[in-house]
Amino acid sequence: MNSGLYQSRREKLRNLLEEQNLGGMLVTLDANRFYLSGFELQDAQTNESSGCLIITAGGKDWLCTDARYAEAASRLWREADKEEVFIYSGGGTGGCAGQINQLLKATVKGVLGFEAFCISQGFFAGVTAGLSVAGADGLVEKLRIVKSPEEIALMRESCNLNHALLHWLPGSLAFGRTEKNISWDIEQFFRNHGAEALSFESIVGINANAALPHARAGEASIGENSCVLVDVGCRLKDYCSDQTRTFWVGDKAPGHFLKTLEQVKEAQKRAFKVIKPGAACKDVHAAAGKYFEEQGVAGHFNHGLGHGVGLQTHERPRLNAADETVLKPGMVVTVEPGLYYPEWGGVRWEHMVLVTEDGYEIF
Amino acid sequence: MNSGLYQSRREKLRNLLEEQNLGGMLVTLDANRFYLSGFELQDAQTNESSGCLIITAGGKDWLCTDARYAEAASRLWREADKEEVFIYSGGGTGGCAGQINQLLKATVKGVLGFEAFCISQGFFAGVTAGLSVAGADGLVEKLRIVKSPEEIALMRESCNLNHALLHWLPGSLAFGRTEKNISWDIEQFFRNHGAEALSFESIVGINANAALPHARAGEASIGENSCVLVDVGCRLKDYCSDQTRTFWVGDKAPGHFLKTLEQVKEAQKRAFKVIKPGAACKDVHAAAGKYFEEQGVAGHFNHGLGHGVGLQTHERPRLNAADETVLKPGMVVTVEPGLYYPEWGGVRWEHMVLVTEDGYEIF
Repeated sequence: MNSGLYQSRREKLRNLLEEQNLGGMLVTLDANRFYLSGFELQDAQTNESSGCLIITAGGKDWLCTDARYAEAASRLWREADKEEVFIYSGGGTGGCAGQINQLLKATVKGVLGFEAFCISQGFFAGVTAGLSVAGADGLVEKLRIVKSPEEIALMRESCNLNHALLHWLPGSLAFGRTEKNISWDIEQFFRNHGAEALSFESIVGINANAALPHARAGEASIGENSCVLVDVGCRLKDYCSDQTRTFWVGDKAPGHFLKTLEQVKEAQKRAFKVIKPGAACKDVHAAAGKYFEEQGVAGHFNHGLGHGVGLQTHERPRLNAADETVLKPGMVVTVEPGLYYPEWGGVRWEHMVLVTEDGYEIF
Repeated sequence: MNSGLYQSRREKLRNLLEEQNLGGMLVTLDANRFYLSGFELQDAQTNESSGCLIITAGGKDWLCTDARYAEAASRLWREADKEEVFIYSGGGTGGCAGQINQLLKATVKGVLGFEAFCISQGFFAGVTAGLSVAGADGLVEKLRIVKSPEEIALMRESCNLNHALLHWLPGSLAFGRTEKNISWDIEQFFRNHGAEALSFESIVGINANAALPHARAGEASIGENSCVLVDVGCRLKDYCSDQTRTFWVGDKAPGHFLKTLEQVKEAQKRAFKVIKPGAACKDVHAAAGKYFEEQGVAGHFNHGLGHGVGLQTHERPRLNAADETVLKPGMVVTVEPGLYYPEWGGVRWEHMVLVTEDGYEIF
C-alpha cells in the first residue's frame, strides 16, 4: 500500500479547496474516497456506504466508517498526525449522520464542500445540519480526469487484457451458443487471466438485441447467420477497460451489416482525428454525428460518443453534445459510435483512447 | 414477463400512498424500481441511475429512463392506459432533473413522496423544485419486507444453491490455496450452477483476516492449520442468498477455535428461539448478545446479528439493538453471530431464516 500516493493526492485536493475558499470537503463518492485513501473502491449496494472522508484545509483528514471495516481501515490508514480513523455506529445507511455532523463541526473551519450528486438528500440533511456548505461536485474528479503515468500504465494493462479477450472471443461465437453462455465465457476469461472483476456487466446482444445499447445477456442464441455485439470490460489492478466489437457469425455478412459496420468505423476515425489537447469534448462527438448526418443515418445513433474511463467505467469527461471540457494530455476516453436498427440489430465499435501531447494514442 | 405482478404491487403501493395522503411517489432506489416495474434491478455504478418511476395516486405510472434503455423499457412496459415510458435526455447523472420535474408537475396532484436516503441531494433539488414533497423512505420496502409464496420459493431455491456450494466447498480448502483462489472457485460454482451473479463479493478470510467482518479476498493462503471464514451469496432468478461458515483446515482444531465455534453456534440457537411473529427484531439481536455477555465475550461481537434479504443482500428489517420492527410471517432474515480475535481470526455462522405462522424455518 503506497500511502504516500494517497497523501499526495489529498495535498492536491487541498490546493483546490483553497482556490474555492472551502474549509474542508466531505467525500462520499466511493471511487473518490478510494482515490484519496485507498479505502473500498466500490460500495456493495446502491443504498449502502462503507464510509466517507473528511478532508480539511488545515491538513488533517478523517476516514469515517463503521465497526465492520475498523480493522481494515486501521490497516490501511496509519493513525498519525494527518490521518485519523473515525468509527461511527449505526451502519452506513443514515443513522451515523449525527455523529459525523459532530465531527465536522469540531474539525472543519469555514465552508464545507460536498458532492451533491453523490450524497443522499437524507444523509446530507443530517450530516450538514448547522454547517455552512457549498456544492463541490467534480472537485476530486478534476484530479482524477488526468491520469498519471502510473495510472496510464495500469489502464494500458487493463486494456491489453481486453484486447486478449477480443482476440480469443470469436472462437467462442458458435452456432447455438446463447448470450448468457458467451457472457460467462467472457467473465471466466477475464478472471482466469488475472482481472479482479468485470468493470461492468458484459453486454452481449444477438441480432435484434444488438439494437439495445444496454442489453442484458439472455437466452437468445447464435443462428446460422447472426449479428453479435459484445461490449465488455474488466477491472485489473483497480482500473477499468471498456471496448465494443460487433461480429457477423455465418457464411457471408449481408450488405446492410457491412455498410453499417463501415459507417460506424468511419465515424470513429473522424472522431479520432479531432482528439488532441485543446479540442472540446463536444466537438469530438460532433465529428461522428456530422458524418452520420451526411450518411442520412443520424437518427440511428442514440447515445453519446464516449466517456472518460479509469477507476470507474463511466467518468468525466463525456464525449457528448453538451460537454465543453477541453481535452488535456493524460485523459483517457472511449470512442464508441453505434447505429441501431431494431429490425435486425446494429453495430457499435469502441476503443479506449489516450490524449497525448500532440494528438491521441489508441490503447 | 409477468406484468400483472408489477401492476398489482403498484396497486398495493397506491393504497399506502392514500394512507399517507401522498399524491404520488418518485421511486429512485434501484431494487424498489425493479420490484414495481421489472426494470433494471441494479444500477451499474454508484453515481449513475438507469431510471426512476413515478407512481401516481390517480393510477397512471411512468417509467423514466434515457435513450439507451428506451427499447428495453418499451419491451417491458406496454404503453397502455396505466403505464407510460418517459425518455429523458442527458443521461442518469443529474441533467435530466428538470425534465422529470416538468413531468411531475404535470402528473402528480398533491404531495410527492420521495426516498430521501436513495436520491442524491443534487438530483432532489432539481427534480422537486416548486413541488410539495415529503420523505417516504421505506414505503416500498414495507411491501418488500414480507415475501409472497412465489418469492419464498425463489429464495429457497437461491439458498439451496448456497447450501450446495457450502457442501462442495471443503474439498477446495487445501494447503496453499489463497483467499482469491477460493473466492473464484465459489463464483464459478455458483455461475456454473445457474446463478446470474454473486449477490455480494465473497468474503474469504484466512486466519487473522477472519477477524475482518468485511475482508476483501487477498493473497493470504491456507497453512498447515488454518481458520477459514467464508461468507457467500448468489443471485438466482433475481433473489439473493447469504450464508457464512467457518472451517478449521488441518489435523486438529485448537481449543480456542472450538470454544468460539461452540459459543457462536449457541448464540445462533438462542436467537432462533426468539424468532416468531410478534417478536421485535431488537430482541432477537439481544438474545445472542445476552448469551455472549454471559460468556464474557460480548466485546468481540461488533456487528448486528442479521438483516433482511431478498432482492437486495441487505434490506429491512435489521436484527440489531435499534430496530423495533415486529416480525411477521413471510419475512426472511439472516442470523449471523460472530466473535472476532485479531490475533488468530474468528468465527461467524450464518443461516437464512423464514418467519412462519408459528415460529421460524431455517432455509
